[in-house]
Amino acid sequence: MSPEVTARVAIVLAAGQGTRMRSRVPKVLHPICGRPMIQHVLQALSEAGTERPVVVTGHGAAEVEAAISGLATCVRQEAQRGTADAVSVALSTVQNDVAEVLVTMGDVPLLEAELFTSLLAARASDDAAVAFVSARMPDPTGYGRVVRGPDGRAAAIVEERDADDATRATNEVNTATYAFDARWLRDAIGRVEASGSGELYLTDLVSIAVSDGRTVTVLEAPNGEDAMGINDRVALAAAEERMRSRIAERHMRNGVTIVDPATTRIDAGVEIGQDARIEPWTTLQGATVIAEDAVIGPNSHVRGSVIGPRTTVWASVIEGSRVAEDVQVGPFAHIRPGCDVGPRCRIGNFAEMKNTRVGAETQQHHFSYLGDADVGDGVNVGAGSVTANFDGVAKHRTVIGDRASIGVDTMMVAPVTIGAGATTGAGAVVTRDVAPGKKVVGVPARPIELRRRGPKPADPSPSTGSEPVPSGADRNT
Amino acid sequence: MSPEVTARVAIVLAAGQGTRMRSRVPKVLHPICGRPMIQHVLQALSEAGTERPVVVTGHGAAEVEAAISGLATCVRQEAQRGTADAVSVALSTVQNDVAEVLVTMGDVPLLEAELFTSLLAARASDDAAVAFVSARMPDPTGYGRVVRGPDGRAAAIVEERDADDATRATNEVNTATYAFDARWLRDAIGRVEASGSGELYLTDLVSIAVSDGRTVTVLEAPNGEDAMGINDRVALAAAEERMRSRIAERHMRNGVTIVDPATTRIDAGVEIGQDARIEPWTTLQGATVIAEDAVIGPNSHVRGSVIGPRTTVWASVIEGSRVAEDVQVGPFAHIRPGCDVGPRCRIGNFAEMKNTRVGAETQQHHFSYLGDADVGDGVNVGAGSVTANFDGVAKHRTVIGDRASIGVDTMMVAPVTIGAGATTGAGAVVTRDVAPGKKVVGVPARPIELRRRGPKPADPSPSTGSEPVPSGADRNT
Amino acid sequence: MSPEVTARVAIVLAAGQGTRMRSRVPKVLHPICGRPMIQHVLQALSEAGTERPVVVTGHGAAEVEAAISGLATCVRQEAQRGTADAVSVALSTVQNDVAEVLVTMGDVPLLEAELFTSLLAARASDDAAVAFVSARMPDPTGYGRVVRGPDGRAAAIVEERDADDATRATNEVNTATYAFDARWLRDAIGRVEASGSGELYLTDLVSIAVSDGRTVTVLEAPNGEDAMGINDRVALAAAEERMRSRIAERHMRNGVTIVDPATTRIDAGVEIGQDARIEPWTTLQGATVIAEDAVIGPNSHVRGSVIGPRTTVWASVIEGSRVAEDVQVGPFAHIRPGCDVGPRCRIGNFAEMKNTRVGAETQQHHFSYLGDADVGDGVNVGAGSVTANFDGVAKHRTVIGDRASIGVDTMMVAPVTIGAGATTGAGAVVTRDVAPGKKVVGVPARPIELRRRGPKPADPSPSTGSEPVPSGADRNT
Repeated sequence: MSPEVTARVAIVLAAGQGTRMRSRVPKVLHPICGRPMIQHVLQALSEAGTERPVVVTGHGAAEVEAAISGLATCVRQEAQRGTADAVSVALSTVQNDVAEVLVTMGDVPLLEAELFTSLLAARASDDAAVAFVSARMPDPTGYGRVVRGPDGRAAAIVEERDADDATRATNEVNTATYAFDARWLRDAIGRVEASGSGELYLTDLVSIAVSDGRTVTVLEAPNGEDAMGINDRVALAAAEERMRSRIAERHMRNGVTIVDPATTRIDAGVEIGQDARIEPWTTLQGATVIAEDAVIGPNSHVRGSVIGPRTTVWASVIEGSRVAEDVQVGPFAHIRPGCDVGPRCRIGNFAEMKNTRVGAETQQHHFSYLGDADVGDGVNVGAGSVTANFDGVAKHRTVIGDRASIGVDTMMVAPVTIGAGATTGAGAVVTRDVAPGKKVVGVPARPIELRRRGPKPADPSPSTGSEPVPSGADRNT
Repeated sequence: MSPEVTARVAIVLAAGQGTRMRSRVPKVLHPICGRPMIQHVLQALSEAGTERPVVVTGHGAAEVEAAISGLATCVRQEAQRGTADAVSVALSTVQNDVAEVLVTMGDVPLLEAELFTSLLAARASDDAAVAFVSARMPDPTGYGRVVRGPDGRAAAIVEERDADDATRATNEVNTATYAFDARWLRDAIGRVEASGSGELYLTDLVSIAVSDGRTVTVLEAPNGEDAMGINDRVALAAAEERMRSRIAERHMRNGVTIVDPATTRIDAGVEIGQDARIEPWTTLQGATVIAEDAVIGPNSHVRGSVIGPRTTVWASVIEGSRVAEDVQVGPFAHIRPGCDVGPRCRIGNFAEMKNTRVGAETQQHHFSYLGDADVGDGVNVGAGSVTANFDGVAKHRTVIGDRASIGVDTMMVAPVTIGAGATTGAGAVVTRDVAPGKKVVGVPARPIELRRRGPKPADPSPSTGSEPVPSGADRNT
Repeated sequence: MSPEVTARVAIVLAAGQGTRMRSRVPKVLHPICGRPMIQHVLQALSEAGTERPVVVTGHGAAEVEAAISGLATCVRQEAQRGTADAVSVALSTVQNDVAEVLVTMGDVPLLEAELFTSLLAARASDDAAVAFVSARMPDPTGYGRVVRGPDGRAAAIVEERDADDATRATNEVNTATYAFDARWLRDAIGRVEASGSGELYLTDLVSIAVSDGRTVTVLEAPNGEDAMGINDRVALAAAEERMRSRIAERHMRNGVTIVDPATTRIDAGVEIGQDARIEPWTTLQGATVIAEDAVIGPNSHVRGSVIGPRTTVWASVIEGSRVAEDVQVGPFAHIRPGCDVGPRCRIGNFAEMKNTRVGAETQQHHFSYLGDADVGDGVNVGAGSVTANFDGVAKHRTVIGDRASIGVDTMMVAPVTIGAGATTGAGAVVTRDVAPGKKVVGVPARPIELRRRGPKPADPSPSTGSEPVPSGADRNT
């Protein structure tokens, strides 16, 4: 065969309404482990080596198309005329030189790439017109049954409503995942006849293949429950649990300790280093990377962030930020998007940080807020300190130099720079830049040296000057 | 029959001590999903259409009576003389015109109304003297066994201590839920004889009915485990899990996404709208209502509150409050009782609010406290702001007008009013009302206009006036 | 027998690398429920009445020895020459008068003392050369199989690689826990021959005993899964779950309500009083004691702390502290190490405390920080208050007398004493001691009495004096 003829294309059926979901959201967009369920299908297809897939949309087409833009080609099935019609619509966009067509459902998110690969291999090995995945179900009610002939080969798939008692008694059901000989499919799809309801069923292709004298191959799914569609929120929750367990097991086998996999939510796509420890009631979401020996949780949420080696994040939230190695975060800290926290920092309880860079060994132990700030190494941020970063129109930056000591309850009115080694007094309101090594106190804050020479305007206790706020006694840890 | 004669009354036996609970709390008052277990029994009986029930109390009678005051008539069994004696005591309070008597246990909280309805229907259909619920138990040790005659009908219930080996071998046990022909019961109850221990057993009524030539009907419980009593805390935890699962499934079938039903605690009675999403490690308690498309959790606790459409509550606590639509709460926010938060507000980390009304689009992003306050639309509350609402004797209100800007670290000493569009400077201590549109700064805060004309008492830097705290540069977001 | 001859010594094999753990940490040091897994083994051996155990270390020997220092005698197996070699190495440290030797694995942490006791009793009763624990495994792949002779007695343990098909078909496997006649063991251990891989297998002792004409006793473990080694992180998580469940059940049987045992983590060794209630997503760690009727959680973490009767800890963290009776903590409070909180206190949201003693009925409702403080009875700590306890060199203490009222946003610059009944104004920066009953205001804070006589240096609004910060209006609750 020429290379082109070996091309495999996947068609994903995603037109159904999903009435039992009782949702305004199209069924295939309900998320599982952080991604719309159809994205899991597309991911597995991609891993199985199929070409860019064709997704057939219908109910909620615009929303579905927006959600998978860039991942698939979408075609709309304007009227719901059945699965065979949906495949016809998709085939109209598929080039003639395609050799094989894989068809699967957008609401069956747990199938793994290995199953698709096995199905394609089985079809090719048998030169079958069609190969499909069956599953053994303890309770097959509602599913199309696999009817096998005297030779044990599949003879037909019969929908439950059309099945006689003997057929209903079988527990082998169709899972609606198929591999087709593309050339045969193009011909046969036009021969599917409308059912009593007027719909064209893809399952009819099995008996058509048999009557064509072609082989039909059945691949029994090793885990039948993974092959079932998500039809309601109970099934959605079960699928979430199954995928969560699968993701957790993968990390554990890689050398990550997950103390309680049942209550740890790790999105597909998160990376975790060896000997990291994920404590319970913790979520790791988005493009998060946890380095080796880090300890995350209990009760922590990390979204789209990179956490360094040996860093601990306890009962805290980190979003869209980088935290270096050996940092201690929490409990009850909140690192908001855009932060970059240096090594060996301590970010303690009720500390908030946003769009802020922090150098090494800086300490923000207590309730306080650093926003739009650039903080050096070895800085101590006192309890109650705040960057007033917004003037009602624009955000401004606060710069704090290395080893500066920000006294308790210091207000830093941005834009402002506090120099390296500078100190602010308890309750200072800093509105002007502070030179390196200087101390400022008061509301608004003035350099403390001035006070020695008598009452000064900046002194909050101007008449004495003799009892300033001790500039070095306003820190806490 | 006349209407009166069709009346059905329920008797709930709740006199036992529950020694294996090892508790000072009466067994039937141990809570399951937010309610004392006996309340679940009374709820199911009410749904089954029985009359106001009679609860027989004994151990801890006063506490039990207080807990179900208004839900049932209570009678005390002064001495623990057995279940037949308890029913006798209850019958003495039941009118003669009652046709049927349902008897069940206060420590069997998982039976659903449908089972009671089926039991009553089965008794009536058979015109049986007694119908009772049996269950098949993998390990029947400790339970009274159902003895059936050659015709397959129940002949007796035999307590384990009185059972021969053949009887012990049966795994069909009595669950202690009965429906009686009331007229027959009144007569037969007096014919129960004391057992060896001196107790009068209700189970004896089965053999009395048989010897009376009356029919005995057995209804096998579809879920045997739901029919078992809660005898220790291990069973209590299992019942909590079962009821939690049942509640979660009901919401999921109604179109609510519950990401991890096993770790989501929703009290019986909570209402949740379509397409709401409840994230893990979340409790919804009391008379809570969650509107459609809201997202609650992870790690949130909502108690007795109403949450509006599309509002998100992340890692936060809300108690006894209303939050409107499109509000973002958390992480780490605490809305205490008595709050009413308007649409599109942002209540951020470490924000606390109590007995406070907030208008639309107001922002309280950071650590701060609003207590006994009336806050308008579009207000910005700076980090560290506090309403000092208590003078040591009484609480006072703080009023903040629309679009006011409360600078960082502003102390508002109530009672005080800050007018619409007014601004406070960083670190201001506001002790007097601020006129609309005005700016105040300093400790205590004075209008900033005065500063232009020279040093003023209100100016925190009186000798210069030239470097006031920039009034517009003290916000943060 | 003389007393010495009845001595029983235990040997714990802990030399293996545990490759499938994929860890830099020695396998036996991976923690389960708060303790390295080998400590659980040593604990069960101690409860079973064996002498101080001998632990054979190899991979990561220094780390293992450090972790169990004081709990066992350690000997190193320098080369990994097999389990029989490891036992030989251990025996060289065991006195000659020992009668019985128990051998078990350091990576089998779920075996309970009862099993060891039963195994020793079974060996002694049979006067067996060796007794070992077997388990029935649904999938025995990878385990050594127990081969029984025609008389049903154990004839050999055959490693899987050496087993024929018939032997592989048995599902009874060796669990690697043995009791030996010590005298026989000393002789027989030298007769073990190297296997094809060069290793000396302890399992060979079974066939040696048989050929010696000695009895071999097999004790089948009642819970086979408890007898299996922890070979990867998936097994580690399963063992954690099993032990967590076991610990929870023990507390529940003692009269503790654990609402959701599956999501409650209680370390081995924690004590909990009757009728305490542990809510979900809660960890109780280390040497923690929870008194009767306390309610901990949901979402609370208590480490190494003592919590008094009826105290509630909601969504909070307590470390290394004592909290007395009837205290309400949280949500979102953090009590750091070294605190002692008196009865009936209220520690509210975003409150932080460290190395601080607090008397009875003191209230710290809001965001604030008390560090290195000594706080009396009935004190009110206003929102935003901070102890500035660190002068950059040393920590200093803050003393607050009974019934003092700390106004909102008060900075207490330590060392400083605020007398009983004293009051601080909103925003005060307290740098000098405050006499009992006095009121101070301003930055730095001065007694308010001075203000009556005209503008004073301490007055933050010196030119007027007529509008001081109302000293009593700066509290909040």
